[in-house]
Amino acid sequence: MHFASDNTGPVHPKVMEALVKANEGYAMPYGADPGMVRVTQTLRDIFEAPEAAVYLVPLGTAANSLILACLSQPWETIFCHKTSHIQEDECNAPEFYTGGTKLTLIDGAAGKMDPGALRSAIAAEEGRGVHGPQRGPISITQATEKGAVHSLDEIRAITDIARSFGLKTHMDGARFANALVHLGCSPAEMTWKAGIDAVSFGGTKNGLMGVEAVVFFDPSHAWEFELRRKRGAQLISKHRYLSAQMEAYLTGDLWLDLARRANAAAKRLSEGLSAVPDIRLHHEVQANLFFADLPRRLHRRLHEAGVEYYLWEGDLDGPDPDEPLTARFVADWSAAESDTDALLALLAPETV
Amino acid sequence: MHFASDNTGPVHPKVMEALVKANEGYAMPYGADPGMVRVTQTLRDIFEAPEAAVYLVPLGTAANSLILACLSQPWETIFCHKTSHIQEDECNAPEFYTGGTKLTLIDGAAGKMDPGALRSAIAAEEGRGVHGPQRGPISITQATEKGAVHSLDEIRAITDIARSFGLKTHMDGARFANALVHLGCSPAEMTWKAGIDAVSFGGTKNGLMGVEAVVFFDPSHAWEFELRRKRGAQLISKHRYLSAQMEAYLTGDLWLDLARRANAAAKRLSEGLSAVPDIRLHHEVQANLFFADLPRRLHRRLHEAGVEYYLWEGDLDGPDPDEPLTARFVADWSAAESDTDALLALLAPETV
Amino acid sequence: MHFASDNTGPVHPKVMEALVKANEGYAMPYGADPGMVRVTQTLRDIFEAPEAAVYLVPLGTAANSLILACLSQPWETIFCHKTSHIQEDECNAPEFYTGGTKLTLIDGAAGKMDPGALRSAIAAEEGRGVHGPQRGPISITQATEKGAVHSLDEIRAITDIARSFGLKTHMDGARFANALVHLGCSPAEMTWKAGIDAVSFGGTKNGLMGVEAVVFFDPSHAWEFELRRKRGAQLISKHRYLSAQMEAYLTGDLWLDLARRANAAAKRLSEGLSAVPDIRLHHEVQANLFFADLPRRLHRRLHEAGVEYYLWEGDLDGPDPDEPLTARFVADWSAAESDTDALLALLAPETV
Amino acid sequence: MHFASDNTGPVHPKVMEALVKANEGYAMPYGADPGMVRVTQTLRDIFEAPEAAVYLVPLGTAANSLILACLSQPWETIFCHKTSHIQEDECNAPEFYTGGTKLTLIDGAAGKMDPGALRSAIAAEEGRGVHGPQRGPISITQATEKGAVHSLDEIRAITDIARSFGLKTHMDGARFANALVHLGCSPAEMTWKAGIDAVSFGGTKNGLMGVEAVVFFDPSHAWEFELRRKRGAQLISKHRYLSAQMEAYLTGDLWLDLARRANAAAKRLSEGLSAVPDIRLHHEVQANLFFADLPRRLHRRLHEAGVEYYLWEGDLDGPDPDEPLTARFVADWSAAESDTDALLALLAPETV
Repeated sequence: MHFASDNTGPVHPKVMEALVKANEGYAMPYGADPGMVRVTQTLRDIFEAPEAAVYLVPLGTAANSLILACLSQPWETIFCHKTSHIQEDECNAPEFYTGGTKLTLIDGAAGKMDPGALRSAIAAEEGRGVHGPQRGPISITQATEKGAVHSLDEIRAITDIARSFGLKTHMDGARFANALVHLGCSPAEMTWKAGIDAVSFGGTKNGLMGVEAVVFFDPSHAWEFELRRKRGAQLISKHRYLSAQMEAYLTGDLWLDLARRANAAAKRLSEGLSAVPDIRLHHEVQANLFFADLPRRLHRRLHEAGVEYYLWEGDLDGPDPDEPLTARFVADWSAAESDTDALLALLAPETV
Repeated sequence: MHFASDNTGPVHPKVMEALVKANEGYAMPYGADPGMVRVTQTLRDIFEAPEAAVYLVPLGTAANSLILACLSQPWETIFCHKTSHIQEDECNAPEFYTGGTKLTLIDGAAGKMDPGALRSAIAAEEGRGVHGPQRGPISITQATEKGAVHSLDEIRAITDIARSFGLKTHMDGARFANALVHLGCSPAEMTWKAGIDAVSFGGTKNGLMGVEAVVFFDPSHAWEFELRRKRGAQLISKHRYLSAQMEAYLTGDLWLDLARRANAAAKRLSEGLSAVPDIRLHHEVQANLFFADLPRRLHRRLHEAGVEYYLWEGDLDGPDPDEPLTARFVADWSAAESDTDALLALLAPETV
Repeated sequence: MHFASDNTGPVHPKVMEALVKANEGYAMPYGADPGMVRVTQTLRDIFEAPEAAVYLVPLGTAANSLILACLSQPWETIFCHKTSHIQEDECNAPEFYTGGTKLTLIDGAAGKMDPGALRSAIAAEEGRGVHGPQRGPISITQATEKGAVHSLDEIRAITDIARSFGLKTHMDGARFANALVHLGCSPAEMTWKAGIDAVSFGGTKNGLMGVEAVVFFDPSHAWEFELRRKRGAQLISKHRYLSAQMEAYLTGDLWLDLARRANAAAKRLSEGLSAVPDIRLHHEVQANLFFADLPRRLHRRLHEAGVEYYLWEGDLDGPDPDEPLTARFVADWSAAESDTDALLALLAPETV
Repeated sequence: MHFASDNTGPVHPKVMEALVKANEGYAMPYGADPGMVRVTQTLRDIFEAPEAAVYLVPLGTAANSLILACLSQPWETIFCHKTSHIQEDECNAPEFYTGGTKLTLIDGAAGKMDPGALRSAIAAEEGRGVHGPQRGPISITQATEKGAVHSLDEIRAITDIARSFGLKTHMDGARFANALVHLGCSPAEMTWKAGIDAVSFGGTKNGLMGVEAVVFFDPSHAWEFELRRKRGAQLISKHRYLSAQMEAYLTGDLWLDLARRANAAAKRLSEGLSAVPDIRLHHEVQANLFFADLPRRLHRRLHEAGVEYYLWEGDLDGPDPDEPLTARFVADWSAAESDTDALLALLAPETV
């Protein structure tokens, strides 16, 4: 019963097969492998962006930080949600890679920036000449760290604000596929057609060993990105193994299938939980993770049974057995229905 | 009628005299001038801190950024008020000098961090191992950017929190003297006796041409500071002219006299304003600056008369003559009573 | 006939098997996988260093840069050979990770710093107080970028200098195994027993997909390293796949076998070349790469036959067919004897 | 007898007068003072560059570092002489301000880069794609740290190389005036007409308290420079006192007069020294500083008499009284002929 993260499960077998197959003979290093030519073309096709600059890096934090470094200057501030990964989970990597930008934190429900709050925050950086931080890019997380998915209108509401101030936009798509299959739209619709300038296109949380694509719809960032990637020690020498993973991921819509599985597992689990008395979901489940409040006694029961998930807020050892404590549940592509059902069985009334 | 800033007025004549007097013969450069020996001793005496490491730099932003760089690591976050100078008015200089720390912004009335909010923000950076930013130093502004002065108890409330988490504390004392004369306590009481580790001891806003002292009560930071100062291009070659200013400032309590004058001017102005119908002060005046709401029509009257101050929020050209708009008034040591009275006369009812 | 680099060949089959085997079930991310416990113990055993702090990162540039950042301060200069990888092949990654140190370049034969030149360069950074760069760590490349291997005495000559100035030493061991099997000594003898403080222990150039170990003999650097690794976007989430590679590498002395194969291939090739008239080796071959001067006509012959290697200096299209041009040949573990012999056959007199 | 540095002497009386005069009434801060308008116009006139972007900063290290940061990218290397101030005397400030560029050190006589060596070093950074540092700007010191002055042809030889590789050029003119009066040419001829893109125009070493101008002949760097200056804590609030110094400096050719005085003092001293048996000048004296070898016994005599100068190489306490040791002598505008003559008298044969 593994619901702690989407980085604890196995790599999908087709990806492992691709790695084994890629391990034949010799290949040029540093991104000059033939597989990367195919990956580039496929991603351009998928995004309907024949000019896009496309790169692979081994981590999502690297993808985010390198893109933001290309889109910003060190005297600027990046606008993002206060729970965004770049703020909470990257140990100042964005500040490191950008050379010391600020992050201006915007509030909003379910990990989505409130457009009014965003507009106010951007507007507030006005009229102080060189004294205040300058306005930098906006970073949206899709799906959000709370498991919510921005609708196309919600994305456009943000990119319209960006455009009105002349700012660039980045999409942290560590869970891009999970969001996409929820919306049922095309990658182009969720990105450049909605005003996004650059994407961290996640693979690692969705069945790969460790690859994220970087997609710039404006290829003028290409050479700067390549230099920043090398200088950041993110240019992998035996690059064919990154290409092989990404190629397998994009072949036969594997990436969409895996995201659908993960989302379905989260939905099954959330529906079961919401049927349990005293359990309250924070939001409707849209992607592959969600937050819920469970009474302390139910947390203890899951804990004793060895269920893996994050107790997000609260203390298992508190006095009140009925106090609600927040849990985060994440499902990945490999989550078995039997695991979900086993977890739910632990919460069934008769077992109390 | 100059109430825009405490950096637009002249340097005090005694300081100019000291500069002229210092301009005789030869002196060792880079802080090895005999004047600096005297300044160091005087500041140690004033702070009752015989071991303190004492330095001079030409700007307050340099003092703040260099101290914070010594007290933090680039993977940490510095806790400060959301209106603090290091957040709003230094164009990311702290991030530059620290190598990319974050600033965690704390709210609270009158530019003072709310202790509960501070404690919560520090506590929130727990339990995420290497993933989140690590806890760094706390920076207090005394007097605050809103013109308020922390009481000794208020300072201790913050440094107690710092201590409980093992964090260091910095005091941005760009208006140190203004706060001190308001409290009527000793420099030691307002700093190390209240738990402060390092101080930016301002001179520029209080009658000097451009000098701030840096005081570390723990001298173990000395050598690192000296290297950071040089690397930051903040080590002045003809240092005797910094020493001369600071020596004049500290001689015969000039620094306290100038602060008293500035505070008195602000008080006189604020009392006059608060007697005008439709004008509302944001806070009781404690130092040499304050914020007040004036109806648009009064702003226009001041504006037409050439009074200099900041229209902090709002638009002079709006439609409603009675809409309250926020002004910031700052008095420096040179503010003449006649100027204050002339400003107030413009607002007298009979002149409407 | 692939002699261009040791990063173009395949991953060793046992490593691929280990990856496939690691792909079962769930594992804690970010280095908390059980495989890493075994890797840590094995590396401590191999290095006879039970207290050593041991980490895995995906690239050699990351290993070097992160170690040097832990051993230096941004106002220091790192002493290294003028042909070192950190100088020539990392696009300023060391400067990025350290926050802007200098690199002081030392000359010396075959990629080895001349001890006298090193001592002079260190001594020269004296007597200028804060003005000059401060003395930082020394970085040795073993085997060197020229394919030479420092003897234990040569290493000690450098670390003795370091010690006499109180400086730390780093070994860039991207080709650690190739050097070790040449010397026939133990890992401890080649490192801490010879005065080395920290090692980049290479795997990628010797049959792995992309893993380098970082070994600090002084574990006091551990927590700082962990934070720098995360902030540098070098902490891999699905870390079990790094552990699996390194575990396979260290099992049954695979790492030593692969290095022996690569060295033997380089030796066979170099001996064949040196028997060809008009070909001159730069140095005796000690590890798995070497430099040689070949007349332009022989370069052309190899080039037309599709042999892959680097034309290091000179232009294939020059006028004089006999002008000697420098080639770099690198053999990896997978270099086949048949390939070597095919290359040499191209140079046989009768084929002219 | 003060010949240690050109930063130990007094500020010229006219500059002090200008400071006193500037200290009247109120002035807008941060460079918006009326004096800066006049300074900008005067510098544009002097340089015959009506579009030039002109700024003032308090230190030469700041001028150099900020200009180089505007002309470079952090993945580049800056080409400069191995004895340049940015390499030897700024404690990595250029690396700090640029975000981690390298400095490639070029040798050459008398502090001037040898053009052939420069061209080779630039050419050597070719053909390695993203792996090596990229080519960045070239920085020339005029006059050099050895006291030599580049002729216009020598400057053009360097800027021609820069142009052929598409690189920008910076002139570190901490002793700009000293070089200019030696050449007897115009500021335009020594800079943009000779291919220079940006200049650190020194004042501090030539009679000011602490001001250097920054001149970009291409004004497209203006806004970036303003942001970098603020972020670097180099934007002085009471800026009128910088303007006043620079205005006095440029009025009535004071700057040229002071440089002529300093150069003449150095010439008088050097001629006297070269007449002493056993003393050898390193180069013909062109500006206001020079190096000379004196036997140890003469050093001791000067030392005992309290003459201030730098013993650049060697140890006063060595055994051999006749061993030549290198001295650096620097004269500033205030060097009195009587001091020079007193020093020379100490070396007269009869005093032995």
